[in-house]
Amino acid sequence: MTSGELSVPTRRKMELVDITRLINEHVQNSTVEEGFCFLFNPHTTAGLTINEGADPAVQEDIIAGMQKIVPMQYPFKHLEGNSAAHIMSSLIGCSLNLMIENGQIVLGTWQRIFFCEFDGPRSRRLQWRITENS
Amino acid sequence: MTSGELSVPTRRKMELVDITRLINEHVQNSTVEEGFCFLFNPHTTAGLTINEGADPAVQEDIIAGMQKIVPMQYPFKHLEGNSAAHIMSSLIGCSLNLMIENGQIVLGTWQRIFFCEFDGPRSRRLQWRITENS
Amino acid sequence: MTSGELSVPTRRKMELVDITRLINEHVQNSTVEEGFCFLFNPHTTAGLTINEGADPAVQEDIIAGMQKIVPMQYPFKHLEGNSAAHIMSSLIGCSLNLMIENGQIVLGTWQRIFFCEFDGPRSRRLQWRITENS
Repeated sequence: MTSGELSVPTRRKMELVDITRLINEHVQNSTVEEGFCFLFNPHTTAGLTINEGADPAVQEDIIAGMQKIVPMQYPFKHLEGNSAAHIMSSLIGCSLNLMIENGQIVLGTWQRIFFCEFDGPRSRRLQWRITENS
Repeated sequence: MTSGELSVPTRRKMELVDITRLINEHVQNSTVEEGFCFLFNPHTTAGLTINEGADPAVQEDIIAGMQKIVPMQYPFKHLEGNSAAHIMSSLIGCSLNLMIENGQIVLGTWQRIFFCEFDGPRSRRLQWRITENS
Repeated sequence: MTSGELSVPTRRKMELVDITRLINEHVQNSTVEEGFCFLFNPHTTAGLTINEGADPAVQEDIIAGMQKIVPMQYPFKHLEGNSAAHIMSSLIGCSLNLMIENGQIVLGTWQRIFFCEFDGPRSRRLQWRITENS
């Protein structure tokens, strides 16, 4: 088992940051051939998802869609003004489990791993743990 | 590996119940230093999430937001009148995987673990399994 | 550890396909008594969820609800016309972790495992990995 923490700086109020290359580097350094890479986001106004990475318009559409789905102006009780971001975090989820096969993360042809910023820009961090299967 | 079941009584139609302390007790009893605690909700109108626990207004806003997002009055086909709760369950998800590090569950500063009741009040239960990493 | 791939043909634009029996077959063949069955959907317009399987109306209501929740006609930027399906995929999630206990997948009384098609009909596939706990 190896584990560590990554820094993910975000630059906008809401954005999807492609972290696939960063995660792949840790998987390759671990030299684990068959196992899992678990990712955990310790923030309550952010999330983690897997979706299409080929066309950047998909990432913009996911953000636009989330803003349509979650009421931004609803008279929320939490006074920091970021309740919509908390709701998005619970809808998207704060962890991901990724299979490692032949030393590589298993992803579909179009899939990439994204850190989802819902209340940025901020300095975010991400915890990872790589375990081996026998 | 150790595993077991927890009881989670809920008191309202919809609410977030903070189960962090209960889960932590099982993790401490397990004496596992490095591993995972997997939680599974066997109900189809409830869920599990991680979100902010410091300000209880966030929990109320998440419930209010879910009621805005998911149509409650839509002419659904399922005759029990709880289709919105089934949809919320699939949106939030019914399991969580938590890292154990130095004998403690890894959570961000503001994060707490919540059982999400979407069709209560009911007597709910929750399954947990703690595994060790070497 | 054993792993493999399943075929999931879908027949409609959007539908929930009950894959519980297929997954159970692989778990039984693995002869694992205590462990996990991890499922991964490599597609970006599909998902995996657990929900009620007894009344097929619930599956229809989940699809109808998702179509109400996610804007289908919003002026999205991705030109393939399936941005709503990408958003649904991130909301529902693309993987599931299932506990195996006494050689059986742990599910609640009403729970079934569903492959969620959001942009079909298509020939979909699903990756699974069964690991053993000691």
